[in-house]
Amino acid sequence: MSSRIGLVMLGGNSMKEITKVVVDAMGGDNAPHEIIKGAVEAVGKSDAIHVILVGKEDVINQELSGYTYNKEQISVVHTSEVIETAEPPVMAIRRKKDSSIVVGLKMVKDKEADAFVSAGSSGAVLAGGQLLVGRIKGVERPPLAPLIPTEKGFSILIDCGANVDARPSHLVQFAKMGSIYMEHIMGVKNPKVAIVNIGAEEEKGNALVKETFPMLKECKDINFIGSIEAREIPHGQADVIVCEAFTGNVILKLYEGVASVLVSKIKGGMKQNLRGMIGGLLVKPVLKKTMKDFDASEYGGAPLLGLTGLVVKTHGSSKAKEVCNSILQCVTFKEEGINEKIKECIQAEEKSAQE
Amino acid sequence: MSSRIGLVMLGGNSMKEITKVVVDAMGGDNAPHEIIKGAVEAVGKSDAIHVILVGKEDVINQELSGYTYNKEQISVVHTSEVIETAEPPVMAIRRKKDSSIVVGLKMVKDKEADAFVSAGSSGAVLAGGQLLVGRIKGVERPPLAPLIPTEKGFSILIDCGANVDARPSHLVQFAKMGSIYMEHIMGVKNPKVAIVNIGAEEEKGNALVKETFPMLKECKDINFIGSIEAREIPHGQADVIVCEAFTGNVILKLYEGVASVLVSKIKGGMKQNLRGMIGGLLVKPVLKKTMKDFDASEYGGAPLLGLTGLVVKTHGSSKAKEVCNSILQCVTFKEEGINEKIKECIQAEEKSAQE
Repeated sequence: MSSRIGLVMLGGNSMKEITKVVVDAMGGDNAPHEIIKGAVEAVGKSDAIHVILVGKEDVINQELSGYTYNKEQISVVHTSEVIETAEPPVMAIRRKKDSSIVVGLKMVKDKEADAFVSAGSSGAVLAGGQLLVGRIKGVERPPLAPLIPTEKGFSILIDCGANVDARPSHLVQFAKMGSIYMEHIMGVKNPKVAIVNIGAEEEKGNALVKETFPMLKECKDINFIGSIEAREIPHGQADVIVCEAFTGNVILKLYEGVASVLVSKIKGGMKQNLRGMIGGLLVKPVLKKTMKDFDASEYGGAPLLGLTGLVVKTHGSSKAKEVCNSILQCVTFKEEGINEKIKECIQAEEKSAQE
Repeated sequence: MSSRIGLVMLGGNSMKEITKVVVDAMGGDNAPHEIIKGAVEAVGKSDAIHVILVGKEDVINQELSGYTYNKEQISVVHTSEVIETAEPPVMAIRRKKDSSIVVGLKMVKDKEADAFVSAGSSGAVLAGGQLLVGRIKGVERPPLAPLIPTEKGFSILIDCGANVDARPSHLVQFAKMGSIYMEHIMGVKNPKVAIVNIGAEEEKGNALVKETFPMLKECKDINFIGSIEAREIPHGQADVIVCEAFTGNVILKLYEGVASVLVSKIKGGMKQNLRGMIGGLLVKPVLKKTMKDFDASEYGGAPLLGLTGLVVKTHGSSKAKEVCNSILQCVTFKEEGINEKIKECIQAEEKSAQE
């Protein structure tokens, strides 16, 4: 099927390359409805995308029949199995060969598609991404790297859950990959890179950070600014927040937890008396906007970087908007040649190590 | 001096034991003014306290002269040196023998006082607590354990910065000490103990958590409920949040960071238009109360548990209220015999290990 997609003519002589994105139609709390809606929205926004919806054909076609869209931009690949969130990931990947996740990831591996987007089981997407797609030569571990909201905009948090108990050399590569992503996808010039630490001084930290810090200082291709304490992360003091996956996962999830409890406490407080209730009605749009700004899903999913193709994990609770944003993000990723840039950067590192 | 303090007669025959608290008058951003104010407030609230202010005598006496208080409840010990926040902690402890922190901690070690409270250099208080005061027999590592606010009230976060790269056996002791603290100081019956993890399933986690989890499950003297994801911490799903110090420090500081950025974003949003401004005025008390509920300093300082005496670290930015609460907390700590309970618990563990 993918052989039918390739270059299309746009407005006369200009040729535009199509980004082929496989979307897991079965994954996430709101599948298939919101997933398919998001896919339809994405092709409506760009004619440089072809979406391949993978999952139960009859269910997908039934959903699709409710929409008007350019039929040439969406195709369907049938799979009979679904990996559930509760399943042990590695085992699920090995056993369910005809699941949307396994089939989708294999299409990326086989270059039938550029990217795979899923709101399904995080564990299965991470394990499958690493086991099935394969790493760019020289990349030791592919990190999961979501954007997190800050006072100033957003930062990339790398790694947030793919490689627990990582080694210093992994963290150095994360710093480089995150830096490339922020510069070329998010347009941040000379992004500031910091390592999460428990104090600002160089001598602080656990064994991993103490060993990684001088290595990051030595890197000439990143703008390393030193340690960042967790308190400063939401203030946007750095663009690339480097950490081991356990720490990153705690940061990502605590962000959500604190924000949601704080806002629910404020809302609860407003209901205590008439003054609060009236005030609450007046500030409702502000609260809504603040929560929206603080909602990572606005920025699309989290890429698993350093693989030969792109794998994007979106929230399990993703709605159409996040799915659509994640698909559009894949286009920028391809157009900016992020993987080529990662390859160059990692191989330059290897070369300089050999010299 | 301390020999003069001991048992005092209260209302006829009843005898009340006095808790002797050494307070570092020189430590923290607001020293000496707010520290001394807090000490005066504390003795005003309970006649079962004797505060020993340690620091520059003339400065302390000058401050004290502005207050009316029971002169028998406050004494002053002169020290000539001050440990600054930026100094390397261990070196500072070794070199500045006549600093308020070193002298204060030695008084606890020598049983001239029950507790030491400081808003000074965290590193010096932690290092000094471990090096100078000494551990309860059987305690492997003393954890720093602040209370953190949650939707339901508060939880204890143990360890939040004293022992990076801790081992599983340390975490098991943290769980027990945290459990004793929550039950006997905070009055939480059968406190729920959870270990911070990156997923709810037992097979998730890094090497440390995977090794610690089954050990916690085996503990008969705690109510272990399993893993807790960072997202659930602010919802108050557990009373005792067990983690390694690096993770704990990230949690504590991110809590502060997210809350402060979120509230400043909400406030900023309210200033955008007249509707928001009016609403903002009306909800101001609610925002203020929410931030206050979410401010850990309301609950006093963080105890360094497992030492032969009590060492309490309060925020560097502590004002009188937190200092006062921290001093009062020392009284409960002594009255409830927390250290005796920790000793019993740890020694029961050793005994059962020998059997």
